[in-house]
Amino acid sequence: MTPTVKAILDKYESDNPGVKANLARILMQGRLGGTGKLIILPVDQGFEHGPARSFAVNEPAYDPHYHFQLAVDAGLSAYAAPLGMIEAGADSFAGQIPTILKVNSANSWANAKDQAVTASVDDALRLGCSAIGFTVYPGSDHFFELAEEIREMSLEAKSVGIATVIWSYPRGGDISKDGELALDVGAYAAHMAALLGAHIIKVKLPTDHIEQKDAKKAYEGGDWSTQAKRVAHVVKSCFNGRRIVVFSGGAAKGADAVYQDARDIRDGGGNGSIIGRNTFQRPRDEALAMLDRLVRIYKGEE
Amino acid sequence: MTPTVKAILDKYESDNPGVKANLARILMQGRLGGTGKLIILPVDQGFEHGPARSFAVNEPAYDPHYHFQLAVDAGLSAYAAPLGMIEAGADSFAGQIPTILKVNSANSWANAKDQAVTASVDDALRLGCSAIGFTVYPGSDHFFELAEEIREMSLEAKSVGIATVIWSYPRGGDISKDGELALDVGAYAAHMAALLGAHIIKVKLPTDHIEQKDAKKAYEGGDWSTQAKRVAHVVKSCFNGRRIVVFSGGAAKGADAVYQDARDIRDGGGNGSIIGRNTFQRPRDEALAMLDRLVRIYKGEE
Amino acid sequence: MTPTVKAILDKYESDNPGVKANLARILMQGRLGGTGKLIILPVDQGFEHGPARSFAVNEPAYDPHYHFQLAVDAGLSAYAAPLGMIEAGADSFAGQIPTILKVNSANSWANAKDQAVTASVDDALRLGCSAIGFTVYPGSDHFFELAEEIREMSLEAKSVGIATVIWSYPRGGDISKDGELALDVGAYAAHMAALLGAHIIKVKLPTDHIEQKDAKKAYEGGDWSTQAKRVAHVVKSCFNGRRIVVFSGGAAKGADAVYQDARDIRDGGGNGSIIGRNTFQRPRDEALAMLDRLVRIYKGEE
Amino acid sequence: MTPTVKAILDKYESDNPGVKANLARILMQGRLGGTGKLIILPVDQGFEHGPARSFAVNEPAYDPHYHFQLAVDAGLSAYAAPLGMIEAGADSFAGQIPTILKVNSANSWANAKDQAVTASVDDALRLGCSAIGFTVYPGSDHFFELAEEIREMSLEAKSVGIATVIWSYPRGGDISKDGELALDVGAYAAHMAALLGAHIIKVKLPTDHIEQKDAKKAYEGGDWSTQAKRVAHVVKSCFNGRRIVVFSGGAAKGADAVYQDARDIRDGGGNGSIIGRNTFQRPRDEALAMLDRLVRIYKGEE
Amino acid sequence: MTPTVKAILDKYESDNPGVKANLARILMQGRLGGTGKLIILPVDQGFEHGPARSFAVNEPAYDPHYHFQLAVDAGLSAYAAPLGMIEAGADSFAGQIPTILKVNSANSWANAKDQAVTASVDDALRLGCSAIGFTVYPGSDHFFELAEEIREMSLEAKSVGIATVIWSYPRGGDISKDGELALDVGAYAAHMAALLGAHIIKVKLPTDHIEQKDAKKAYEGGDWSTQAKRVAHVVKSCFNGRRIVVFSGGAAKGADAVYQDARDIRDGGGNGSIIGRNTFQRPRDEALAMLDRLVRIYKGEE
Repeated sequence: MTPTVKAILDKYESDNPGVKANLARILMQGRLGGTGKLIILPVDQGFEHGPARSFAVNEPAYDPHYHFQLAVDAGLSAYAAPLGMIEAGADSFAGQIPTILKVNSANSWANAKDQAVTASVDDALRLGCSAIGFTVYPGSDHFFELAEEIREMSLEAKSVGIATVIWSYPRGGDISKDGELALDVGAYAAHMAALLGAHIIKVKLPTDHIEQKDAKKAYEGGDWSTQAKRVAHVVKSCFNGRRIVVFSGGAAKGADAVYQDARDIRDGGGNGSIIGRNTFQRPRDEALAMLDRLVRIYKGEE
Repeated sequence: MTPTVKAILDKYESDNPGVKANLARILMQGRLGGTGKLIILPVDQGFEHGPARSFAVNEPAYDPHYHFQLAVDAGLSAYAAPLGMIEAGADSFAGQIPTILKVNSANSWANAKDQAVTASVDDALRLGCSAIGFTVYPGSDHFFELAEEIREMSLEAKSVGIATVIWSYPRGGDISKDGELALDVGAYAAHMAALLGAHIIKVKLPTDHIEQKDAKKAYEGGDWSTQAKRVAHVVKSCFNGRRIVVFSGGAAKGADAVYQDARDIRDGGGNGSIIGRNTFQRPRDEALAMLDRLVRIYKGEE
Repeated sequence: MTPTVKAILDKYESDNPGVKANLARILMQGRLGGTGKLIILPVDQGFEHGPARSFAVNEPAYDPHYHFQLAVDAGLSAYAAPLGMIEAGADSFAGQIPTILKVNSANSWANAKDQAVTASVDDALRLGCSAIGFTVYPGSDHFFELAEEIREMSLEAKSVGIATVIWSYPRGGDISKDGELALDVGAYAAHMAALLGAHIIKVKLPTDHIEQKDAKKAYEGGDWSTQAKRVAHVVKSCFNGRRIVVFSGGAAKGADAVYQDARDIRDGGGNGSIIGRNTFQRPRDEALAMLDRLVRIYKGEE
Repeated sequence: MTPTVKAILDKYESDNPGVKANLARILMQGRLGGTGKLIILPVDQGFEHGPARSFAVNEPAYDPHYHFQLAVDAGLSAYAAPLGMIEAGADSFAGQIPTILKVNSANSWANAKDQAVTASVDDALRLGCSAIGFTVYPGSDHFFELAEEIREMSLEAKSVGIATVIWSYPRGGDISKDGELALDVGAYAAHMAALLGAHIIKVKLPTDHIEQKDAKKAYEGGDWSTQAKRVAHVVKSCFNGRRIVVFSGGAAKGADAVYQDARDIRDGGGNGSIIGRNTFQRPRDEALAMLDRLVRIYKGEE
Repeated sequence: MTPTVKAILDKYESDNPGVKANLARILMQGRLGGTGKLIILPVDQGFEHGPARSFAVNEPAYDPHYHFQLAVDAGLSAYAAPLGMIEAGADSFAGQIPTILKVNSANSWANAKDQAVTASVDDALRLGCSAIGFTVYPGSDHFFELAEEIREMSLEAKSVGIATVIWSYPRGGDISKDGELALDVGAYAAHMAALLGAHIIKVKLPTDHIEQKDAKKAYEGGDWSTQAKRVAHVVKSCFNGRRIVVFSGGAAKGADAVYQDARDIRDGGGNGSIIGRNTFQRPRDEALAMLDRLVRIYKGEE
């Protein structure tokens, strides 16, 4: 255990040692273990976009073991996936990498900005998961219902020593398409996840757009010109850095953009990346190379 | 324990000693302890308006510990906040100031006049809170649902010795914007909170506007020209003073207006203020000076 | 225990002795104790119309103790009120008068013909209430939901010896304003309350208007010219007198009209009055004088 | 409600209004209603001694209704009996007299100084009982088990507004036969019932024997020569009079002795008698005459 | 909150903020508030020895309010008593002093070295208690059963924010009478209480006797000549001072011996005294004077 990780754990001051042990497992895992930085491999694309859109480009990725193995081989911090994906590999990889059970999911055919609860805290326990993962859609008409669902699940999870990761994705309601990535909106979404009791908060990298008219004044005069500064604002919005914040890479894109994102997250004080499509939709060798480089960026080695 | 506080507790005649002990903790805390007056620091602005609109003007306020410390240093009666904010400081400040867990929350993006339940009575117990706080929106289409939620939570809370604070904010339905602050509307909203079983009722300071046509006759001939008289009417509407009533300061405004509000609340027989933005959006020194003066006003020293 | 009361209790043949004991408490209480007649003081006006419209005309009535004391001093049969009002006096008046906990409530601002459930059977037990009171709105789109709520609550109440009082007020749907008081509608509403399992049914005094086209034939040739005859029809509609039926006094009106109503209820075989605004909106002396006279009317003394 | 009864209820300061209402029902019932004194008719002899030993001497007493009717006709405060006896009359006598459901019972054939739990709080609710009655045997090897049983039942009863009566009968262990009635033993037994949370304590009238060697010093120099003084000591041992204490008449004996006992209980500040065999084993007329005289004694009329 | 108290709370690192808040309440209460020292008034003598042996020497002590008031007036840290004693004063003294609900009890007549569970965590919540208190008898045949009872109750208590105090009294089995107070036995008993999860441990002041043959070697060469050194050994046995340890005063004795005990506890690093008979068996003025002096000793003023 490094002082850096201990300092992070100490900020979760109301949590029992069970939750902290699971957070510690994630923070001490893999090549970033002990640095306070983390990279999580999330594979919920199958639920969100269907198997072919997710895996056809890299056929071995149809196999759930592929992702466990990738996360292990790349020395990542944790692997996050829906129930069936975890069930399909939890025995083979038991104890090899912390898992995050994604307990709610949407799909391409759903019109409602909502998600279905598709797994339970009991599943997380029987499958040896370190955390549950839950998506909320601030802005959506369904946000209150989603918030009430995670309230119940998170209370249960905390009582049995399981950590909570909240994916906070603004969408729906009056939020414009640009607004979904706006700085003010992203910071607000991250803050709400913190208020809901998340241990780890996952949001998208924000643009410098300011969406909310009422918020404009609060951002006036600030310098939001660089991604690192915007990351820093989101981190500050998560209890001034008292909560772990990771950022998603979004749609698959060029490798250089991915590396730059990581450098900005690092420089802005973010804790790391959740990076899915940008890795498992590349051939395994390329993916391992990319993850190797991301690890080195987070270690400050490049 | 002062006779004043004992007399207040005696009015909660159906409650068990657990609830009374928690009410006593609030009433005996800080510089107003024993006077029957109280000042509560509520910090749910992050949920309601987002972090930047809430804290950018006073950057240290991004840190949850800032608010605990402000409430302690100013000698206030209690600190109220949503789950994440309480979790982030409950261990560091255990036993230093009574906390009120805000168990439901809205946000700027919600169109419905509704709130999501975001914490539980079990959370209040594990976090050592003295009360739960719950917002209802009389007038809204969602009021019945909100009333049913607090009915269940309050019954559970009362059975385990946790007090109930109800924020009663009329909005929605046929109530006009002016009507939200109307005297008749505010008194009615306060009365409904009392009927729902609240131990402490929180409403806004009312104007002399009378909103409801059917109520006009009941207010005719009354003298509602001063704020103190209007406060007295609200207090009377809460079981003739058998329930603690505190008033909110509303949006940040000039210090003199804040002091005058407090004098009017005091002179009208109200029990005190819930004052958030007017304090944590000022620099800490100014906030402490303002709170010091408010305390002195409630003590009748100015 | 008088033969009259015993005969009434015997009609509740499926109920356990706990429910009967509570019905007996109401029927043996006060000056009408033993006569089979009853007068109930209901104070839910604060919820329905707001405090000023309810109590400003008689200021002491803002205090919940006022109503308990009025019901006791007038020798009434029971006192009915929402949760907060009962909580505010249940200890001081424990054992002095049977209480009916009004477990659902509407308010002036609600557009829906619906009510919120605002108290529980567990509240009734801890507060020592003899019955729960519940309003249904036959005709409303929400009637089915209301019916399902009382079905659940009443089943629970009956299992723990608490009686059920149903306020059955036709409104909403295709029912006209006149129709709300129509004889056929009132009898139908009362009958539905009986069918829902009510022990005590509370309806409004009906006019001789016949609302439903389909029902007209059934009422043809009947003599509905006097209120007493209409009362008798409602009583007959409640299982031929096997259920206690009380009638509401409606809005405050002249004393003579109130007395005449009571005589008609008595002469038509109704069990009594629920009379709220007509008493607590008068000065206490006048209210006591009116209630004294009502008691004497029900005793057949005038 | 008399000031005397109100003052007694106020001493049960941690109880909810439901419990107080049931205590009030007992204290306001019958000819002693309002005096703070009470006479309870207990008929658990059939369980303890068998039917013939209990009822053959007065054949009508085989019928459970006989005892309900005797208690009602004599104007007593409450009737206590085991489940079957209550079930056999609870409907016929619903609301006529408060009942105490004896929820544990022993019998002549049991060697263990123990009792079986033979009824539940749920039975008390469905049967409309005001209290549960429970026997403990301090001194017995089974005392700890009995104490644990009443702890659970009493917690449940208190939460639903049912009062608790504890019969505290020292026996077993090292206590001698004389010791069972010793002053020090009786006071200790009564005190333990109070500590277990009883609302009403039932013990036997003590002799002036001091059983416990270790206690002799505490009683030295005291004047225990009269029964009234010994009663006063027992009352003092029940939280200095904060709990209702009633005394049993013991085996059937001469009427004059019964009257003298009552005078001593009254003069010593006891709250009344539980008197079973001395009444129902006499012909009904004699029993009514005896009870009439006991009532008058407690009223201070003789 | 003083640094001393904060440092103590930090040692309870696995506990939730609810438990810490209750420990803080005890540690910040009264005249020793903030010093890390505490004096607890326990009044379970009535259960253990009977009322006369406990209270006859100081008659006002028969009244439960006497002890609450004594603890408040003397500025003590907490008041501990069985269910009935707490119920009899919890409302009058709500919020005035932290209470410890003694949830198991023995009595003079029991031959078994066992205790009955006589109250519940639910009682502690409804009565507003800060902790439950539980006695174990290491050495007794019943120790395993006692350990299992406190395991269940303590788990429940910790989940709802209630602290656990364990009275650890070696007796029974092969332990000699002298052995009950032996240094090795006392340290062992204290250690077992710590191992069972106690937050506060209560043991008797040990003599320099070493009871266990097997333990003799471990104590050889140590200097156990002063009581302070023996206290230090017990404190060290409680996780090297990570748990609060208080010592009982035993039977009533001379005041000077009581003061010397307190000085030894203080000098040995113990946290304070649980002192019952030595105070409430003296006249109130003498008791207050003694407690005043004990407070000053713990403050290091004499």
